[in-house]
Amino acid sequence: MPVSDLCYLGIDIGGSSIKAGLVTDDGRILQKRHASSALEDGLEAGLANLERISRELVADSGVSWERIRAIGVAAPGTMDIPAGVVFHPFNLPGWKNLPLRDMVSERLGKPAVLQNDANAAALGETWLGAGKKTKSLMFWTLGTGVGGGIVLDGKVWEGAHSHAAECGHIIIQQEGGPHSEHGIHGCVELYVGARALVRRCREALGAGRASSLSALADDNAVLTPLAIAKAAESGDDLARSLVLESARYLAVGTVNVIHILNPEMVLVGGAMTFGQHTTELGRAFLDVLRAEVKKRTFPITAERTVIDYASLGNEAGFIGAAACARIKYPA
Amino acid sequence: MPVSDLCYLGIDIGGSSIKAGLVTDDGRILQKRHASSALEDGLEAGLANLERISRELVADSGVSWERIRAIGVAAPGTMDIPAGVVFHPFNLPGWKNLPLRDMVSERLGKPAVLQNDANAAALGETWLGAGKKTKSLMFWTLGTGVGGGIVLDGKVWEGAHSHAAECGHIIIQQEGGPHSEHGIHGCVELYVGARALVRRCREALGAGRASSLSALADDNAVLTPLAIAKAAESGDDLARSLVLESARYLAVGTVNVIHILNPEMVLVGGAMTFGQHTTELGRAFLDVLRAEVKKRTFPITAERTVIDYASLGNEAGFIGAAACARIKYPA
Repeated sequence: MPVSDLCYLGIDIGGSSIKAGLVTDDGRILQKRHASSALEDGLEAGLANLERISRELVADSGVSWERIRAIGVAAPGTMDIPAGVVFHPFNLPGWKNLPLRDMVSERLGKPAVLQNDANAAALGETWLGAGKKTKSLMFWTLGTGVGGGIVLDGKVWEGAHSHAAECGHIIIQQEGGPHSEHGIHGCVELYVGARALVRRCREALGAGRASSLSALADDNAVLTPLAIAKAAESGDDLARSLVLESARYLAVGTVNVIHILNPEMVLVGGAMTFGQHTTELGRAFLDVLRAEVKKRTFPITAERTVIDYASLGNEAGFIGAAACARIKYPA
Repeated sequence: MPVSDLCYLGIDIGGSSIKAGLVTDDGRILQKRHASSALEDGLEAGLANLERISRELVADSGVSWERIRAIGVAAPGTMDIPAGVVFHPFNLPGWKNLPLRDMVSERLGKPAVLQNDANAAALGETWLGAGKKTKSLMFWTLGTGVGGGIVLDGKVWEGAHSHAAECGHIIIQQEGGPHSEHGIHGCVELYVGARALVRRCREALGAGRASSLSALADDNAVLTPLAIAKAAESGDDLARSLVLESARYLAVGTVNVIHILNPEMVLVGGAMTFGQHTTELGRAFLDVLRAEVKKRTFPITAERTVIDYASLGNEAGFIGAAACARIKYPA
């Protein structure tokens, strides 16, 4: 069978759903599928879903099982990547201290690799996304939390203890910054994450700033990041300034990544990206991010570092997981 | 001739002196020498000194010229490392936009590589210094400026545009921090560099803090980092607290490096390290640095990241330059 006929199965395990896809060695997505992580029914139910959609999508693709070279598994939280073990992914409470790589490998009868989900997404973007052909890249995932993934020399940089790219924890205000309940303070996530946006909005409203959001300010359930984003898109001045303030804070974290790593490219993805290129707000966010980074970096890096949105959306995880398998088990 | 007989010539060009050494492939330093950078006499005088000490030290070593496999050149400032060109090293004013690698290679008749001096020092420490056998390491060079070098997978991480490891520029206080005349603000160097120490001392004295340094406060020439270090070592409370405050600020930068890179080891070297392990102040500095990093990192990185002083002193540059040549031109 010709080498280019080989495929990789990528699986991305999240707190609410498991996404999987079959990708050829030359980067065509043949089939994809998703299912519930079934957290309420326990680990075995989740793994059964994982196995079921994997087998179903392979069957639907018409690809014989023999053509699958290896499996990549992306999962959230801290882990020992070389050992294939997840520690305690906080959004997968039943999946604790689990030899996940080997469990998936045994269920599906193929060699497997484990990778952190944001790391995998970063690699996915360099394979088939906005970072195509890029050898070094940092990827911000903006959501409730702020995560990151780093690709260097075409491979995920995992760090010495599988803890690299915890970029939401980069400290940008060592004194006087916001605090979390875990004793962490002044880090990017506490400025840019979803909760930070709500906190900054509440503070601004408390200080008397006029906004269409004022009516929601006393209700935690209503003053959501989505409500703020919608208000910003509708032209509410306060909401818009809060979103663009996020871009300024993110720029400081990005400057630190650039000073340390000097990657070719920095990508931004996730739920907190406000429509990305498709909305005026998303474009304004990117403009502010780029301009603020430029101000604070060396002339050469200011000019040459490409800063843009990721392009694979929520498929980056399974594509990147497949990419990790492809590097470890080449065709 | 047996492979282990091959040698590498490492040359470290600084603002005041050029240091060179001959190192065997298995890491023995056979001979070393230094000379003035001769800045006042121009580029040609400096290069002539470089060539003279290189030829002299090889002659003195008794090693035949044929046994020298390649030359590594370390230089300060921004450069295009793959192209072998230095841009405008601010402490080598006559050495601007120079194809330094090829100039040295032609003068000495051997293949050569160029590397940034702090990057080279970091690699040197992993070859023969405190980071021996370490595959990933970040090295802080503390002096008038604050620089850094990064080694990943046993090689210098240069970045996409030769601008990686500008760790003195990591922003740790995005709002309300100290400013430089270049519009940079809140970065590690502005807290930890030699001028920052003097500034913080002057501010504390101005605020009425009692100290043996009070008498010097009106005189820029006398209130030096060295005077502050001496006072700290003599038990002056203010001076000591300023030095340990530097360790706390350096810890924040180190936390950012760890969150991004998760290296095995972080080393600290340079003039602003207060005697390192040999003095009580040096040991206290390291204790504060380690404790502050531990507080702000994940349990696994807090426990496993080794933080220590570098051990090669001002020989790290030429040793690391030789190490760079050795990687590019293996025996």
